[in-house]
Amino acid sequence: MEVVEVLRMNGGLGETSYANNSLVQRKVILMTMPITEEAITQVYRSVDAITNCFCIAELGCSSGPNSLVVAAELISTVHQLSRSQGRQLPEFQIFLNDLPGNDFNSIFQSLLPQFRAQLNREMGSESAPCFVYGVPGSFYGRLFVANSLHFVHSSYSLMWLSKVPEGVEKWNKEEIYIGSGSPAPVINAYYSQFRLDFDTFLKCRSEEVVGGGAMVLTILGRKSENAASKECCYIWELLALSLKEMVSEGAIEEEKVHSFNIPEYTPSPAEVRRSVEEEGSFAITRLEASEIRWAECGGGGSYDVAKCMRSVAEPLLVEHFGGSIIDELFEKYKRILTDRMSKEEMKFINVTVSLIRRG
Amino acid sequence: MEVVEVLRMNGGLGETSYANNSLVQRKVILMTMPITEEAITQVYRSVDAITNCFCIAELGCSSGPNSLVVAAELISTVHQLSRSQGRQLPEFQIFLNDLPGNDFNSIFQSLLPQFRAQLNREMGSESAPCFVYGVPGSFYGRLFVANSLHFVHSSYSLMWLSKVPEGVEKWNKEEIYIGSGSPAPVINAYYSQFRLDFDTFLKCRSEEVVGGGAMVLTILGRKSENAASKECCYIWELLALSLKEMVSEGAIEEEKVHSFNIPEYTPSPAEVRRSVEEEGSFAITRLEASEIRWAECGGGGSYDVAKCMRSVAEPLLVEHFGGSIIDELFEKYKRILTDRMSKEEMKFINVTVSLIRRG
Repeated sequence: MEVVEVLRMNGGLGETSYANNSLVQRKVILMTMPITEEAITQVYRSVDAITNCFCIAELGCSSGPNSLVVAAELISTVHQLSRSQGRQLPEFQIFLNDLPGNDFNSIFQSLLPQFRAQLNREMGSESAPCFVYGVPGSFYGRLFVANSLHFVHSSYSLMWLSKVPEGVEKWNKEEIYIGSGSPAPVINAYYSQFRLDFDTFLKCRSEEVVGGGAMVLTILGRKSENAASKECCYIWELLALSLKEMVSEGAIEEEKVHSFNIPEYTPSPAEVRRSVEEEGSFAITRLEASEIRWAECGGGGSYDVAKCMRSVAEPLLVEHFGGSIIDELFEKYKRILTDRMSKEEMKFINVTVSLIRRG
Repeated sequence: MEVVEVLRMNGGLGETSYANNSLVQRKVILMTMPITEEAITQVYRSVDAITNCFCIAELGCSSGPNSLVVAAELISTVHQLSRSQGRQLPEFQIFLNDLPGNDFNSIFQSLLPQFRAQLNREMGSESAPCFVYGVPGSFYGRLFVANSLHFVHSSYSLMWLSKVPEGVEKWNKEEIYIGSGSPAPVINAYYSQFRLDFDTFLKCRSEEVVGGGAMVLTILGRKSENAASKECCYIWELLALSLKEMVSEGAIEEEKVHSFNIPEYTPSPAEVRRSVEEEGSFAITRLEASEIRWAECGGGGSYDVAKCMRSVAEPLLVEHFGGSIIDELFEKYKRILTDRMSKEEMKFINVTVSLIRRG
């Protein structure tokens, strides 16, 4: 499986689409917005060239109401700043990036008109030209010309790895991510892949972000230093349970579950810090962990958590197991989630890091 | 009807897609390639900033094998130039523009991987970073930041108007474009709309193209000074005939045909010259008319001409008449084309203008 060809959120605007099931991701973007605004303000004050054009990238934009939330906030913030400082409003270049399988057509046809209408409502005739582009490609490679970006934002994307770590398939039979049953080599392989990928990410961005430019990255992660901590692994362990139920019913071959692993790693703040410091191009201005309850996926029930996870994981699951198991799998998952969520309050952990490109 | 929301080539990669029925458009791009290469060479020699980044835009890129033809040629040309002149190869920024309804997903998922593989084959390890972006929006508005483009290409797109000219619906009942039965006010209204739109286009690009930058525009047009000349109107007159046959058979209401008009204008070289000179930002280095036989749409038969026109006009027709008439309509059209093409050799006329942004 080539992750770059398979990984994507469910497209379109339907019942099981990411667009309709990404409320928790939206809440995380809004929760971390003060950090984003702080970074934008600092960049706008310090980078001279911005008087002509403010260039931002949303990496892992997906397709849904979240794709343009940060762009809208950024424009509004810069608008206020330029007015209060008597500076001319710059033109805005907004690059929306995701893997090529992302549903860019939905962004361009449904979301962009709403975004433009919102800008017109809020800023009216003072509105500066704002150019929005789609950027298909992996952020584990170069995506932009050298020294061109002022601000980079990414939320709930950098936990996705460029591939399933080598060896994991052999050693991680009972789990689909790091879990309580994963031996040490599995954890090491996952962490090694994260370090490699995150280092590549930082190197690529260091070429693209201007000196004094900023990045705010929020990664699904953990607080604990234990990579097998329940806080980051449990959501996948319950999906593994659902898959095993289907094995016991004969609906899936056991071997198929043994060979399935999620290309993800949920780092701790310390791990993020170590990678940034080792790579060296960026200085950390903030590093925080926050949390959001699973129940925030929607009305508070397991139904919305299952739908959220389906909108995220369905393309990966379909690639490996075929499409026929999906409805049944998420019925089981929902039932298991209902049971567990009634017994304890589970949370997603978000690691947010705010970075400045050294000059 | 809002043209910006309706006009698009047929998406996808299927039987009736533009991707599979745009051979004549491809041949026109290749025919005019010497003019394109000449312009690129001149820009590369004269614009200093290019040592860092060569920025090109393909306006009206559609989705199909034609979308990236000029980009590939441009990179190859600049590659040769930089080698022969001992200059460092720049990074490339390629902006693919079309209306938001264009099938950008197909470009990103099917065409871009082929394009990258081709670059790797041809240039290997010497290949410079090449960044491709999708730009949804009308070229009758700003699409790019000021002073950012070095080269603009557009082929078979600028004959499309931003809207059906006002008044045409009232006066042009028997035709769907300018035709032998169109009264003078119809012709005037069409030409006025073209002048307005083309002037807007030139003004927008004049802000975006750097001094010394170039544009090569090929427009479906005519040689004659008579806007109702058969060379540009006949292809639509035959489609109007097909529609009227369906009226006589009761499959379409006559009123629906009376109120349908194609938002297109096919200018003469003199009309293009007049607009460019009046707007004043660009100098004309070349202005040529060329021709290509209808039969070049494919194997030489009417079948391919009908399919080509369907891939171009279907979304407009479906918006006005509904989807149920399409198969039958193009069966009739094919029959009429077979008859006419057996009696005379018809040609499309291409007007190509090469422009330099005054410094």
